[in-house]
Amino acid sequence: MNTMAHKILEGKRGIIFGALNDQSIAWKAAELCHQAGASIVLSNAPIALRMGEINKLAEACNNAPVIGADVTNMDDLKNLFEKSMEHFGGKIDFILHSVGMSMNIRKGNTYTGLNHEFQHKTLDISAMSLHRVCQTAYELDAMNDWGSIVALTYIAAQRVFPDYNEMADAKALLESIARSFGYHFGVRNKVRINTVSQSPTRTTAGSGVKGFDGFINYAEKMSPLGNASAEDCAAYCVSLFSDYTRMVTMQNLFHDGGFSFTGVTPAVIERMED
Amino acid sequence: MNTMAHKILEGKRGIIFGALNDQSIAWKAAELCHQAGASIVLSNAPIALRMGEINKLAEACNNAPVIGADVTNMDDLKNLFEKSMEHFGGKIDFILHSVGMSMNIRKGNTYTGLNHEFQHKTLDISAMSLHRVCQTAYELDAMNDWGSIVALTYIAAQRVFPDYNEMADAKALLESIARSFGYHFGVRNKVRINTVSQSPTRTTAGSGVKGFDGFINYAEKMSPLGNASAEDCAAYCVSLFSDYTRMVTMQNLFHDGGFSFTGVTPAVIERMED
Amino acid sequence: MNTMAHKILEGKRGIIFGALNDQSIAWKAAELCHQAGASIVLSNAPIALRMGEINKLAEACNNAPVIGADVTNMDDLKNLFEKSMEHFGGKIDFILHSVGMSMNIRKGNTYTGLNHEFQHKTLDISAMSLHRVCQTAYELDAMNDWGSIVALTYIAAQRVFPDYNEMADAKALLESIARSFGYHFGVRNKVRINTVSQSPTRTTAGSGVKGFDGFINYAEKMSPLGNASAEDCAAYCVSLFSDYTRMVTMQNLFHDGGFSFTGVTPAVIERMED
Amino acid sequence: MNTMAHKILEGKRGIIFGALNDQSIAWKAAELCHQAGASIVLSNAPIALRMGEINKLAEACNNAPVIGADVTNMDDLKNLFEKSMEHFGGKIDFILHSVGMSMNIRKGNTYTGLNHEFQHKTLDISAMSLHRVCQTAYELDAMNDWGSIVALTYIAAQRVFPDYNEMADAKALLESIARSFGYHFGVRNKVRINTVSQSPTRTTAGSGVKGFDGFINYAEKMSPLGNASAEDCAAYCVSLFSDYTRMVTMQNLFHDGGFSFTGVTPAVIERMED
Repeated sequence: MNTMAHKILEGKRGIIFGALNDQSIAWKAAELCHQAGASIVLSNAPIALRMGEINKLAEACNNAPVIGADVTNMDDLKNLFEKSMEHFGGKIDFILHSVGMSMNIRKGNTYTGLNHEFQHKTLDISAMSLHRVCQTAYELDAMNDWGSIVALTYIAAQRVFPDYNEMADAKALLESIARSFGYHFGVRNKVRINTVSQSPTRTTAGSGVKGFDGFINYAEKMSPLGNASAEDCAAYCVSLFSDYTRMVTMQNLFHDGGFSFTGVTPAVIERMED
Repeated sequence: MNTMAHKILEGKRGIIFGALNDQSIAWKAAELCHQAGASIVLSNAPIALRMGEINKLAEACNNAPVIGADVTNMDDLKNLFEKSMEHFGGKIDFILHSVGMSMNIRKGNTYTGLNHEFQHKTLDISAMSLHRVCQTAYELDAMNDWGSIVALTYIAAQRVFPDYNEMADAKALLESIARSFGYHFGVRNKVRINTVSQSPTRTTAGSGVKGFDGFINYAEKMSPLGNASAEDCAAYCVSLFSDYTRMVTMQNLFHDGGFSFTGVTPAVIERMED
Repeated sequence: MNTMAHKILEGKRGIIFGALNDQSIAWKAAELCHQAGASIVLSNAPIALRMGEINKLAEACNNAPVIGADVTNMDDLKNLFEKSMEHFGGKIDFILHSVGMSMNIRKGNTYTGLNHEFQHKTLDISAMSLHRVCQTAYELDAMNDWGSIVALTYIAAQRVFPDYNEMADAKALLESIARSFGYHFGVRNKVRINTVSQSPTRTTAGSGVKGFDGFINYAEKMSPLGNASAEDCAAYCVSLFSDYTRMVTMQNLFHDGGFSFTGVTPAVIERMED
Repeated sequence: MNTMAHKILEGKRGIIFGALNDQSIAWKAAELCHQAGASIVLSNAPIALRMGEINKLAEACNNAPVIGADVTNMDDLKNLFEKSMEHFGGKIDFILHSVGMSMNIRKGNTYTGLNHEFQHKTLDISAMSLHRVCQTAYELDAMNDWGSIVALTYIAAQRVFPDYNEMADAKALLESIARSFGYHFGVRNKVRINTVSQSPTRTTAGSGVKGFDGFINYAEKMSPLGNASAEDCAAYCVSLFSDYTRMVTMQNLFHDGGFSFTGVTPAVIERMED
């Protein structure tokens, strides 16, 4: 989308979590935010940073600082926000939270046979991390009024997609945290918090889910506009960080080509006839 | 379900709309309500009554009166309620609304090429009829306190099932009317109004929808418990007419074996892989 | 919002229904769309046009044509679309539907005592009009690919606000039509259709609702960001007409400062304590 | 409700978690299930059992066994299910999960200043406990086909009630777990899992929430039928354990006198006018 020439984020500063490689939605979002005129800081888990690709992104974004942070660690987050404000010379306007990890999926545990220690870890990294990020920003008074926080989620929070396993519950928790914190941050600072529920996307994270090919094909055939791409999602995030959407908060926003409100399509039905 | 021996509707009186033949959900509901101890009155459109099958049902239900009523006609409805109260010797405890008809589907019009006069007719018969039934009962003060009104609906009111055509909109309107009237009838008489969103069912009405076979097969494979049958639905209606559910109102209740909250199943995915 | 300098609708052409006076959301939307670089055509009911204020708006929007159309009349709509395409020299990119009228509210009828002829009229003007607009555009193949249609709605479609009366049902029908037609227009032309569920707004239409002052005050106190203004809503519509939101379709989007997901606030609670 | 004479749970066996004292919903549910003909086992946390009141309930329920279990401990749960099946001489038909606890609320932490270790504990006890209960039953193959599991929840999972604090997120997680496990248990054993979203109730747990009086008053005035009582809720649970509701699964069922779909009422509006 070359309409980023519009510079609708001119003068805004944001932190983007979770850009792993150029397949990542967060990666595309960083690129578009930069093109739209924003200054950004990139963050990811220390272990992810060690893989090093993020430096290419940083360069492409006007040498954005890359600051590692374990999202389960309040000290790391405090350091990230303090360094970011120092870098920006002021408060922050937007945050993208694109973080998730399921230990049980990695280990091949089924939903009916979860390891509950891993389940804690999954919730900790994938959902409670949003609370920690918001709480850090709230305690440090780090957000400008009318700032915008977006977290990426998936429709499995509403309906069961069996292979998505415990991540469905983590996303439901994430969406609830966005609502809950959105209330408090809205009242105090007019900061809005929303989740974007994105089509299945062929990212490194997405591809890890079993049966991903059949699944992404199904979603494509069940979406009147087809699946939304990572770039599309990045553009949508830009609109949510901009001043065009200031009164939208505490919402879960489906960005999925219509999948969420399509019950069935002829393309699916025809394969169900014997 | 032979548990109807429980007689959980003992002493209650109800009007059941829409029993066409022994495939109808309303037909099963009438049978079960009778078995559960209720006295009932049967009603349907005059033209449907002329087909005569309903008399078999009336006999099986302790010679329940059959009173014709065009649900688009307030005088007919007034007559129905007055005659029913006369027959019962008192007010009414429950109503089942199982009424729907799409002129555009009958005429083969697509959703993008509707005849708007027909669309009015569809809304009139399938949705506004519930308002008229409720308004008649309200104006005549015909419902006992804590009475229960149930209207049958379908998930197309929430998500698009293309072949369901304009009936989707009619069901959305129906569900809204149930909520709106449920508020007012609740405040004045503690009468509750809910809609039951039932699995696709092989009734005379259901079978008229194009591609019904592929579709019912899809729904079966997308429902962890399988599709709910007409008998299952009738039993659920009995529970909603009973005193076990007195504080449930203004709800749309999915009775569909879990279809509504299932995003996809392996049985569907496997057919989507090339 | 002076960020409209961004020109994010440069090169796009749209039809805006329902600008009555400078309090109208449609009026603000027309202004902002114009400022954002779009060419527009204004339309309203012939009777509304006779009041003449719209000509001021037309002037302010680069002498936009004003074409009257009764939204219950397919011939009027055909004429509007044909004239608009002639004026633009091509197809249309976006449409704003901001149309609603309740005969029963005007006549002072309660929800439990509706005149059902008026109810038909309300549905016809307030909801079926969206179907007619879409069908006209669809039949004339009048929309560019990836075009965007937005209709304004209100949360009474989901929850009962007693004074909103039959308009609640009309809005539920409107939202269903947006979903249903959104599916078909998406499949054929990638055109997206969404509804925006706006805070109560002190427009000529809004103010007609009984008890509007207590109500708007309640909504203000129940919204973490406060009520969204007509200007805010116009800016949000601009984002939905732009290319930043191309994969969002068939959604009902709350633009209400967080009202929709706030259950209660201390400001309301404190007034409930005796 | 003396209609429990119907014995609609005759022959069924269930485990009821969370009966603390005669204000508890679980206490009322145990009484009604017993009256409806079911055999039951009572369970609670060892510390709660030590308070001893539950023995009165056990006596009233035909000397139901009381088996302590820490719901965060899989061994305890395994012991509970094994002992229960031994007692019943067979598998289990229903389970009521009425368990919740917030460490942060107890300690007076605000939502924007959570202790994240406590947050883990809250999720562990209030939500993950349902997963553990289900997983234990699943692994031991302890449920009869068509069994029914109900967990109690609250509408804060959907909308923000600020004083409900982190419990809102815990309930959102709980509801997601019910859906997710409901899918798998449905597919394998036709076991259904639902959550009941109950009116605020003056139980020991409920009363612990700050500003509870103003709040319960607000809910009463916002519910067309008034707030549902603990007894009402117990009766509704009985219907969900019975065979009248066999095809209802993966649902969140509001049992709240219409609160969930009421946007505002005159009684609230009038207090908002200055």
